[in-house]
Amino acid sequence: MKKLINAVENVLTEQLQGMAAAHPELNISLDPKYITRVGAPFAGKVAIISGGGSGHEPLHGGFVGHGMLTAACPGEVFTSPTPDQMYEAAKAVASDAGVLFIVKNYTGDVLNFETAAEMVHSEGIKVQNVIVDDDVAVKDSLYTAGRRGVGTTVILEKVVGAAAEEGYGLDACADLARKVNSYGRSMGMALTSCIVPAAGKPTFTLAEDEVEIGIGIHGEPGQYREKLRPADAIVETLALEILDDGAYKRTLREWDRENATWVERDVIDEPFKAGDSVIALVNSMGGTPVSELYAVYRKLAELCEARDITIARKLVGPYITSLEMQGFSITLVKADAEILKFWDAPVSTPALRWGV
Amino acid sequence: MKKLINAVENVLTEQLQGMAAAHPELNISLDPKYITRVGAPFAGKVAIISGGGSGHEPLHGGFVGHGMLTAACPGEVFTSPTPDQMYEAAKAVASDAGVLFIVKNYTGDVLNFETAAEMVHSEGIKVQNVIVDDDVAVKDSLYTAGRRGVGTTVILEKVVGAAAEEGYGLDACADLARKVNSYGRSMGMALTSCIVPAAGKPTFTLAEDEVEIGIGIHGEPGQYREKLRPADAIVETLALEILDDGAYKRTLREWDRENATWVERDVIDEPFKAGDSVIALVNSMGGTPVSELYAVYRKLAELCEARDITIARKLVGPYITSLEMQGFSITLVKADAEILKFWDAPVSTPALRWGV
Repeated sequence: MKKLINAVENVLTEQLQGMAAAHPELNISLDPKYITRVGAPFAGKVAIISGGGSGHEPLHGGFVGHGMLTAACPGEVFTSPTPDQMYEAAKAVASDAGVLFIVKNYTGDVLNFETAAEMVHSEGIKVQNVIVDDDVAVKDSLYTAGRRGVGTTVILEKVVGAAAEEGYGLDACADLARKVNSYGRSMGMALTSCIVPAAGKPTFTLAEDEVEIGIGIHGEPGQYREKLRPADAIVETLALEILDDGAYKRTLREWDRENATWVERDVIDEPFKAGDSVIALVNSMGGTPVSELYAVYRKLAELCEARDITIARKLVGPYITSLEMQGFSITLVKADAEILKFWDAPVSTPALRWGV
Repeated sequence: MKKLINAVENVLTEQLQGMAAAHPELNISLDPKYITRVGAPFAGKVAIISGGGSGHEPLHGGFVGHGMLTAACPGEVFTSPTPDQMYEAAKAVASDAGVLFIVKNYTGDVLNFETAAEMVHSEGIKVQNVIVDDDVAVKDSLYTAGRRGVGTTVILEKVVGAAAEEGYGLDACADLARKVNSYGRSMGMALTSCIVPAAGKPTFTLAEDEVEIGIGIHGEPGQYREKLRPADAIVETLALEILDDGAYKRTLREWDRENATWVERDVIDEPFKAGDSVIALVNSMGGTPVSELYAVYRKLAELCEARDITIARKLVGPYITSLEMQGFSITLVKADAEILKFWDAPVSTPALRWGV
């Protein structure tokens, strides 16, 4: 295993120490591990908190800052954070406006964030959980009930972070987050595996001429393996899975603050249609050069144009990664005026910055 | 060779088409190949133009925009651009304030940019060339007389681009660029090789437990190979080569506009010393996760602090890469008030953006 590490057991701690040295605008707690904005809590503003296993950097710690996350809770590599991390982070940054937890749909993450929400509630802090489940590649998997949470998370954190900055209340932030999630769809593929430091060997193996279509961000299996095809053909496969994905029924679980219990309701995500505007993310899984991402973007733009879908905004780069994995994912989020307004709002984080 | 490409011969063209689709604020010429800011030329402002082989993205095309480059000229992967690219780009964006060429010190780049300068001069356009030669790892190599040009280029393009935006004249821009270069030192290392598409096989091979110290950005050999050591030990090796580098005598070649000839003069780069402030770049060679870069930054910050050197500003991420190579480089540039002022100035490019 060739990695820039000292000891396997210190990988996350030393990464956080490096972030602390590089970013004095962040406060970093090492026990339990969480990252917060200096100056939090911010009176009257909802605290936006996310988290999940490490190894997907810059998600989530790189998105803590003005106009995006108030705090992030990193688990060990590809491992859910524990409820005490979210609980302590929430206590550190919660104002009287409450706390919104943004949770990618992995069983461990969902359970631990639910436990954390109950703990936070018991402290008299208003709280709500929102799940991101946008991966069209697989429904149910080894790690998930329903779709996995992937690239839409980046766009959701930006948009809802800006809304919170502007003074949206907790329920309005949660509603907006659920809208962004329901408007977002993603799919990814891998050329190579990655090595989790604690494992010391590749998560999976692919032959020299083989790729995995529909990969998850932890290297979990996708739809199928195939021989490497030209980039345009691969992009078309992923983009059409997203663009042609039909109405998708999901079950939302929401925290009922009055009765201190979880309630469920079904909602339907509508498919993309001609005339839609979208925010597009062409994301590197970590080890793919930006030059290849632009080749992907080129074909994606062509496919969107052919369906009369306008890419109103875009990100091209490594935003939700799987360590050094080579490959890419595409995320499209339908963008209405509210979403575009908050996308364009100023943001200042280690990994996303404009207008500041 | 596992890459997201269609045909080897179209790699650069399709990358540029993708950039054009993603960035309507850029104009992209495909014959000859160059990238310019929409709206150029800008009256009264020096046009800042760089270029070099592709494969180092986001350098240089990702740095075209407000407050940084006016144009970039990409050669094929790891291959110098030809003089007609720089000549046509210069004609497209030159105002009466003239053109500054920023050139990394590789023999082909230097010669082709000198030829381009003579062609531009013959059109009656004021022109000056500045060489970046900041790599302390090797003096003279297969591709270079003197030190190679690496990470300082990123910082120089930001600083001088901001100065041009603010109205610095051509000679003032050239002087500032030479100061930044003389204040900058870099060194890199590789964990893995990369594959140039046209070659189809790795540029070099390293054993499973072996790394290359002092690598160039084209995979050209460095100082030595060694067994992989802990990250802290590797960082210390690179950082101390930079921090302990003595006075370095270089020969500047400048275009004498009056006599239409090249003149040479020797200058001395002074070493770093206690009390200096620096801009630090911890750069991924392309395939190294940002989490490992923060582990590098952690140790670098500790070493700088121990020598009473203040990291006043920093960048952590992939800025001057070698395709999918795993590894990193460190760049330190002594930062005086003028350099910091222009570093902090607004910038809006595909790869660097703030304040806009």
